[in-house]
Amino acid sequence: MADNGKDITIYDIAKKLDISAATVSRGLQDHPRVNKNTKKLIRKTAEEMGYHFNSFASNLRKKKSKVIGVIVPRLNSNFMSDVIAGIEKVVNNANYGLFISQSLETMQREISNADAMLNNRVEGLLVSLAYNTTDVDHFREFIRRKTPVIFFDRVTELENCPLIHIDNFKAAYEITLHLIDQGCKRIVHITGNLLRNVYKDRFDGYKKALEDRGIPFDDSLVIVNDLSAAAGTVAAQQILQMTPLPDGVFSSNDICAIACMLAVKQAGIKIPQQLAFAGFNNDPTCCVVEPNLTTVNYKGYEMGEVAAKMMINYLTDKDSVQPAHSVILRSELLVRESSLRK
Amino acid sequence: MADNGKDITIYDIAKKLDISAATVSRGLQDHPRVNKNTKKLIRKTAEEMGYHFNSFASNLRKKKSKVIGVIVPRLNSNFMSDVIAGIEKVVNNANYGLFISQSLETMQREISNADAMLNNRVEGLLVSLAYNTTDVDHFREFIRRKTPVIFFDRVTELENCPLIHIDNFKAAYEITLHLIDQGCKRIVHITGNLLRNVYKDRFDGYKKALEDRGIPFDDSLVIVNDLSAAAGTVAAQQILQMTPLPDGVFSSNDICAIACMLAVKQAGIKIPQQLAFAGFNNDPTCCVVEPNLTTVNYKGYEMGEVAAKMMINYLTDKDSVQPAHSVILRSELLVRESSLRK
Repeated sequence: MADNGKDITIYDIAKKLDISAATVSRGLQDHPRVNKNTKKLIRKTAEEMGYHFNSFASNLRKKKSKVIGVIVPRLNSNFMSDVIAGIEKVVNNANYGLFISQSLETMQREISNADAMLNNRVEGLLVSLAYNTTDVDHFREFIRRKTPVIFFDRVTELENCPLIHIDNFKAAYEITLHLIDQGCKRIVHITGNLLRNVYKDRFDGYKKALEDRGIPFDDSLVIVNDLSAAAGTVAAQQILQMTPLPDGVFSSNDICAIACMLAVKQAGIKIPQQLAFAGFNNDPTCCVVEPNLTTVNYKGYEMGEVAAKMMINYLTDKDSVQPAHSVILRSELLVRESSLRK
Repeated sequence: MADNGKDITIYDIAKKLDISAATVSRGLQDHPRVNKNTKKLIRKTAEEMGYHFNSFASNLRKKKSKVIGVIVPRLNSNFMSDVIAGIEKVVNNANYGLFISQSLETMQREISNADAMLNNRVEGLLVSLAYNTTDVDHFREFIRRKTPVIFFDRVTELENCPLIHIDNFKAAYEITLHLIDQGCKRIVHITGNLLRNVYKDRFDGYKKALEDRGIPFDDSLVIVNDLSAAAGTVAAQQILQMTPLPDGVFSSNDICAIACMLAVKQAGIKIPQQLAFAGFNNDPTCCVVEPNLTTVNYKGYEMGEVAAKMMINYLTDKDSVQPAHSVILRSELLVRESSLRK
């Protein structure tokens, strides 16, 4: 920085060395046309004067922000912070910056987040939808501008935007079959807003498993809440009042399953003998709670990496852009003591 | 966006309406000089043509990026994702953008993160230091440019940069006294890199409590590791081989304490009767593990909010800038069953 508080520019360096600004610019970029000793001198002078390349201005000239935006429901969930960590690593390694915002689970804030991303000219946008988002018109302007939008985890169909998620239907189907195989016949399902694919698909998988094993679907065994720990404690009270007592619980996330399990345990119910439990996400807490919680494992970090890599490929290697497609990531059933009755 | 794929500018709107670009600009900014009906027409036309305010270009003209940068050790820790969520909320509400990067606990990456933040002209920087950072010269250029740098949680002295943290010494002193009051005399301390204030101060608090109660400090009871869950499991094996068996463990974080506790429990040790446990952070898992873990509660979300508010105040209300100072946030001892022997 110059003494007057302004940034040092290539013009200042040129003036000091009495050469052209173009030569300074080429020298700093290691251009073959510039003499080796001149390059050395330019770099030395630049360093002494405190010159710093201004990506911000340079990117504006190139009409590139070199920034990727991310909108997620909440930054402070175990799963989402893993996703963000995976995204950051890939984006950072590709020398892009990362712009982050959270919708706090409301469509209203998601719209204003999208607007801010647009105004800041992010080159690409990664989105996981808020709990109550009913339409996604707020992302259409990105598409009109040919700014790629990729949805992950909580996804929706929008033009040809790629979607990255796991097979939630299949994972829920398998975990419900497992509970049935362990002798459960009255299985409670705790779920979230069925607008969101993740909860809808898991609910459908649960129903299909019952159907395939000839167990009639019972609406009164479905609890819809926000899947928080607090909601899990409330769900436990609802379950304890059901007669006869259900024999299994499949919750659409682990946090809610664990809070529910601790509360029914405290009421003297034996797990898994009287009530088997299964969750979803493989939160680290699953291996702390006793008995350990059966769940579906899918890696947030990996999902973040895959989404970010797809975006970087779009942005840096335009020639090889594939027609938009979906990526279904692997998930696996992890059977633990909370559901093992046999 | 225009059909040719370029952004619509105020010049396009001016041309269409056959008025001056200055009038369009004033109209969009609701300037009192522009006639009400003209304003309406300008806004309607702007909307129809798909005009979007270009904050990126506008901010460059004003030499303001309207972006705040954050560098943290890891994005995927419970504590840090709470901090980031708190920062995001404040920054977003103040209409600033949030640039995020993680050092992955290495000084090398922290340096390159700082460089990227500098090149992208963030207006302010919030930093929590990497595990092995030995000097902070990479932040000096921000200070030279009068870009405020605020350290939080893992802090260090650098010129007049404000520091936001809890009283780690006092918190560790109190939790160690509590263990002593419960009858512990051979208390293991598990800690991280003592370069970092958080671990050094907690270690000092532990030693002072022993001293004040006349218990000689025993170097062989101190385990230094990276405080991960895996390290906690290894620490359990070390503890089990100590003769005589220690009667208390104070770990500098909960994750490591919990993994250690589960491993010694599995080896048949009774908690808290044979070995009392205390952690640090109040991770949600503390209330899932059995027995529930005694710990120090301090709120990451609140720390993020405080850091971000201080930064926004610096940036938006320059007149009232206070001389740089530190903020010590409250923390509290939470006694739970893992340490209650009386």
